[in-house]
Amino acid sequence: MFNVTTFGESHGKGIGVVIDGCPSRIGLNSDDFVRDMERRRPGRHRLDTPRRETDRVEIQSGVFEGLTTGTPITLFIRNRDADSKPYEILRRLFRPGHADYTYFKKYGHFDFRGGGRYSARETAARVAAGVVAEKILKPLGTQVIGYTLELGGVKARKINLDFVEKNPLFCPDPTAVKSMEEAMVKAKKEGDSIGGISEILVTGCPAGLGEPVFDKLDADLAKAVMSIGTIKGVEIGAGFDAARLKGSENNDPITPKGFGSNRAGGILGGISNGDEIIVRVAMKAIPSISKEQDTIDREKHPATLKLTGRFDTSALPRVIPVLEAMVKIVLADHYLRSKTLS
Amino acid sequence: MFNVTTFGESHGKGIGVVIDGCPSRIGLNSDDFVRDMERRRPGRHRLDTPRRETDRVEIQSGVFEGLTTGTPITLFIRNRDADSKPYEILRRLFRPGHADYTYFKKYGHFDFRGGGRYSARETAARVAAGVVAEKILKPLGTQVIGYTLELGGVKARKINLDFVEKNPLFCPDPTAVKSMEEAMVKAKKEGDSIGGISEILVTGCPAGLGEPVFDKLDADLAKAVMSIGTIKGVEIGAGFDAARLKGSENNDPITPKGFGSNRAGGILGGISNGDEIIVRVAMKAIPSISKEQDTIDREKHPATLKLTGRFDTSALPRVIPVLEAMVKIVLADHYLRSKTLS
Amino acid sequence: MFNVTTFGESHGKGIGVVIDGCPSRIGLNSDDFVRDMERRRPGRHRLDTPRRETDRVEIQSGVFEGLTTGTPITLFIRNRDADSKPYEILRRLFRPGHADYTYFKKYGHFDFRGGGRYSARETAARVAAGVVAEKILKPLGTQVIGYTLELGGVKARKINLDFVEKNPLFCPDPTAVKSMEEAMVKAKKEGDSIGGISEILVTGCPAGLGEPVFDKLDADLAKAVMSIGTIKGVEIGAGFDAARLKGSENNDPITPKGFGSNRAGGILGGISNGDEIIVRVAMKAIPSISKEQDTIDREKHPATLKLTGRFDTSALPRVIPVLEAMVKIVLADHYLRSKTLS
Amino acid sequence: MFNVTTFGESHGKGIGVVIDGCPSRIGLNSDDFVRDMERRRPGRHRLDTPRRETDRVEIQSGVFEGLTTGTPITLFIRNRDADSKPYEILRRLFRPGHADYTYFKKYGHFDFRGGGRYSARETAARVAAGVVAEKILKPLGTQVIGYTLELGGVKARKINLDFVEKNPLFCPDPTAVKSMEEAMVKAKKEGDSIGGISEILVTGCPAGLGEPVFDKLDADLAKAVMSIGTIKGVEIGAGFDAARLKGSENNDPITPKGFGSNRAGGILGGISNGDEIIVRVAMKAIPSISKEQDTIDREKHPATLKLTGRFDTSALPRVIPVLEAMVKIVLADHYLRSKTLS
Repeated sequence: MFNVTTFGESHGKGIGVVIDGCPSRIGLNSDDFVRDMERRRPGRHRLDTPRRETDRVEIQSGVFEGLTTGTPITLFIRNRDADSKPYEILRRLFRPGHADYTYFKKYGHFDFRGGGRYSARETAARVAAGVVAEKILKPLGTQVIGYTLELGGVKARKINLDFVEKNPLFCPDPTAVKSMEEAMVKAKKEGDSIGGISEILVTGCPAGLGEPVFDKLDADLAKAVMSIGTIKGVEIGAGFDAARLKGSENNDPITPKGFGSNRAGGILGGISNGDEIIVRVAMKAIPSISKEQDTIDREKHPATLKLTGRFDTSALPRVIPVLEAMVKIVLADHYLRSKTLS
Repeated sequence: MFNVTTFGESHGKGIGVVIDGCPSRIGLNSDDFVRDMERRRPGRHRLDTPRRETDRVEIQSGVFEGLTTGTPITLFIRNRDADSKPYEILRRLFRPGHADYTYFKKYGHFDFRGGGRYSARETAARVAAGVVAEKILKPLGTQVIGYTLELGGVKARKINLDFVEKNPLFCPDPTAVKSMEEAMVKAKKEGDSIGGISEILVTGCPAGLGEPVFDKLDADLAKAVMSIGTIKGVEIGAGFDAARLKGSENNDPITPKGFGSNRAGGILGGISNGDEIIVRVAMKAIPSISKEQDTIDREKHPATLKLTGRFDTSALPRVIPVLEAMVKIVLADHYLRSKTLS
Repeated sequence: MFNVTTFGESHGKGIGVVIDGCPSRIGLNSDDFVRDMERRRPGRHRLDTPRRETDRVEIQSGVFEGLTTGTPITLFIRNRDADSKPYEILRRLFRPGHADYTYFKKYGHFDFRGGGRYSARETAARVAAGVVAEKILKPLGTQVIGYTLELGGVKARKINLDFVEKNPLFCPDPTAVKSMEEAMVKAKKEGDSIGGISEILVTGCPAGLGEPVFDKLDADLAKAVMSIGTIKGVEIGAGFDAARLKGSENNDPITPKGFGSNRAGGILGGISNGDEIIVRVAMKAIPSISKEQDTIDREKHPATLKLTGRFDTSALPRVIPVLEAMVKIVLADHYLRSKTLS
Repeated sequence: MFNVTTFGESHGKGIGVVIDGCPSRIGLNSDDFVRDMERRRPGRHRLDTPRRETDRVEIQSGVFEGLTTGTPITLFIRNRDADSKPYEILRRLFRPGHADYTYFKKYGHFDFRGGGRYSARETAARVAAGVVAEKILKPLGTQVIGYTLELGGVKARKINLDFVEKNPLFCPDPTAVKSMEEAMVKAKKEGDSIGGISEILVTGCPAGLGEPVFDKLDADLAKAVMSIGTIKGVEIGAGFDAARLKGSENNDPITPKGFGSNRAGGILGGISNGDEIIVRVAMKAIPSISKEQDTIDREKHPATLKLTGRFDTSALPRVIPVLEAMVKIVLADHYLRSKTLS
């Protein structure tokens, strides 16, 4: 229904997305994208890569006189500042932890500059699509909020949603922000990178979204967030902790006022139950580091690789708007699907 | 490509699956399904529900003279022993932890007997489809092996693959089996249920499977396993542990002989790298328990529910063949897709 | 949305269909299928093949207590009376006009008995799916009526819809029926077969169904009817005649009371305009004939083939319910899709 | 497999197409598109609309160092010369024969300038996609050739393929070209438009393309060409003439050297048989004419509409490259699918 296809490479002309299936007569203009583009932008945090992307979203189709027309919406983000010289070494050597090796095995030929197609830059197109998805969710009162639960081993001990947008790390715990920053600074100094855990909370989601067997809502959410490069784990509600609870502990009692607890994370049998949806993801450390690494070249000779250039120290916080976008896209899709039922 | 659609309910005529896109001239007959059906069968473990399913798979289409024809293969498993009387109470009351409530909200009308469509019985059809998927993988030398990593809090400390099929719990650690059994017995006695963690290991998977953006191999695997009712978490490779590793620790070095470690879990940038693929899942405790639970009826009045009948104490070990099947289906699909590239 | 997958072969266990995406709470039982199954049944006309199919539709899933549940509906029609001996010769020889040769080239292996998968018998499953589609269209006041416009060169000169169901040929012209029958008798005597033209008329279709670019309503209708074995041509509205009209002649004027004419056949720009939808199809003569024909065997040696057995003399009238079913399926699908827009 | 999505409007920023599923390492650059863009260009024939489109195809993604990468290829064609003032009247009045009315009914809101999304301009994107499809077909020796069989009632009496590209009407009959031109001039003078019939011939197509039931090759071809705005009828092989042939006349005999005739049009049972594929389509006269026409406004008041501006007199010859492109896209898709079988 809400069908999203991205295209483009980090060092080509730009990246974009075609959205098919968006209802007509929804107000949409370039300014709508500014906030989330800014939240995802590199260089937002002082430790992030200083590469300056303006990331202005250009609406190439599907909008007329400020309203969606129901036909495919194309959003395009032109690449600037794309110095591909530092990547020449990647013509020969595979970067550990990156997809260079697998792309080479799969395609024989790929745009290796900055990751090309598998660059994190591709996610900017997803964030743009998420803005459109949010337009569909807003009238339902559905809100999607992501935050940093753990970074470089430093945990947020409490969730203060009001604080999330007040710090560059989208950390929900005012007392943890400083330690998280220190972890980033330390890794940066060492020429290393760190990972973390993020949670995405959905409030106001109507009950009844999700298909019962293969396209379960939790299955689609898991796929959506796992399709982001650095994600290595996904949990819904109690997640891995649920494995250690007994049925009597894990079942959420049902009361006339709603569920008595929310270990299910808002989804039962693959269908939203009206409670808050909770998705948690684990991000690996960004594989681009300045430290020397062992690798091979295209002819399988051993080599060492020492990357120079500008890297983020962590996928967090920049990945948060991408996670939010993916969740919004899945929810918008399932919401539109649910309308065919009644 | 390898397109799988299941149908049927736990207390209807039976459950089945249509597989579209299976190549022609693959040997297939009813006996091929016996082993995995037996491994998934309830009552296999003495603590499992004694409900006796014979689960003979009937090939309804797509096979001629013992060979697949390339046209849709339909597999059907007739229901027996389906006493739906104990479920009459579910016409009124929602079972906590089950999809009764969400189905009611979504569809207004559903087959509540034993879960109907969302019964674990549906997974028998997946196991059958997995048998066909395995036929596609076998010539590649690809093997999919699932085992119980943790059950009711008892962990397997070592992985002895040879031991897995030698115990009813698919536990890979001979020293842990007994404690796992005790955890099951204890929960059973208490009228309760337990959860656990399972790992699925794929050996011999060729490099190059997976699509680069949305249909990444890890994303499809996450969706596939998350579409099983009791799964609440998924990890690939190092999973949540990766969130605490630095880039220099988490990146797998590449050597002329292959990867120096496998924290990636065999997948880089959504594409298989030729190493072992490792998927880990968390299962919640089965929500059907004999203990009294708080719930509501269809008119939102508070009620208490005390289920009587025959329940499994844990989704493990029976869910293992289902997990294996889902992984096989995803791999077969991506393998067939990969053939369009060359 | 209204997703239809058929399976099965003419001489296997049976044929069936899985319908995914049907809304819940629609009344459905086995008796609903009787009328259209009977209309499609061979042997209905005295010149048709005397093979007696009972074609009782068994609901295998998706219906509970007489109402659809929103989950996949599986319909199964068991094969009887399937004497496959007369087909042994087809293990060696390709029948001209049939798909024997192309299946052999594509799959290397196929169920050649009576066409197996590509037998007209497969269309019984489509008719069953059409019955479910009609349930979705009925509340809209949409009706789909097919009739025989031409048979063996004999044309219906007028369209009397009331007469259609009153004669076994679904001929809308009382004065043409006799000549059509004579054409059939003559062909039968000669051991030959005849083709014809059928029209499907849709009344009461709401405006606004159809997607603007690739999934245009007329494009989907063309595909749906062309997917029936004997169809070699499709027209919408004026069809090929439109090629000879000037713009000023072909454009339907728009008036406050509706369109002043209907050369468009109810579809403009791929979207229904609220007027009657008119689809016309050309059917080739059924390729199975008793006359001797030139062909080759699997080793490319020349051969002559003289088929013995029971063949229909014409796809008409039996194909009419199949055409109606395909049109209903397309309309139901587009109607459900259209609900996601508002 | 070879998945094509177009986007854009006639008077927006431009039109484009995303192609997903193209194999990697195929040479592709902007110049590859020049020939077919030129063949489809308006103003090519002196009677065509003088609107001058340069239609330079910009490769926005999916190509690196002159070779496809296997990731989505985006092609974009910028709009120029788009004077939308003459279209202001369309804000109020529906043009007969166009999709204005149905878009209004479906979406409530649409880009009415020159048809917006349903403008013939959209087909330029399809032609671009066809160029990529042709790259896949070329190594197979498959060629797709379209020509004008009839225009404004003037028929081509013979097919001389060598002559097709030597005249601006793609007419295969040197003796018919002049009369066709005269028909165009006459209609132009009268402020009217004319329709015609086109044939697309495929040579060198391997046997075995096409799926057996719903995605039959002829069904997909019918859908593909019917998805072009002006097409009202489709025939495969003998088409509507087949309705008047007996089985013994219509069946193509099979000989050791191939088929003895080709009334099937190269497709049996939905699968290519290795013979030439023949698709024939009927085009209505372009609905934009200078003659006064009856219509209504958005409030259903009667009105007369006299269009001024630049219109083509006929969809032919410009639609020929579009038809070729659609056929190429379908064949490339089925060819890639067929690779998963072996």
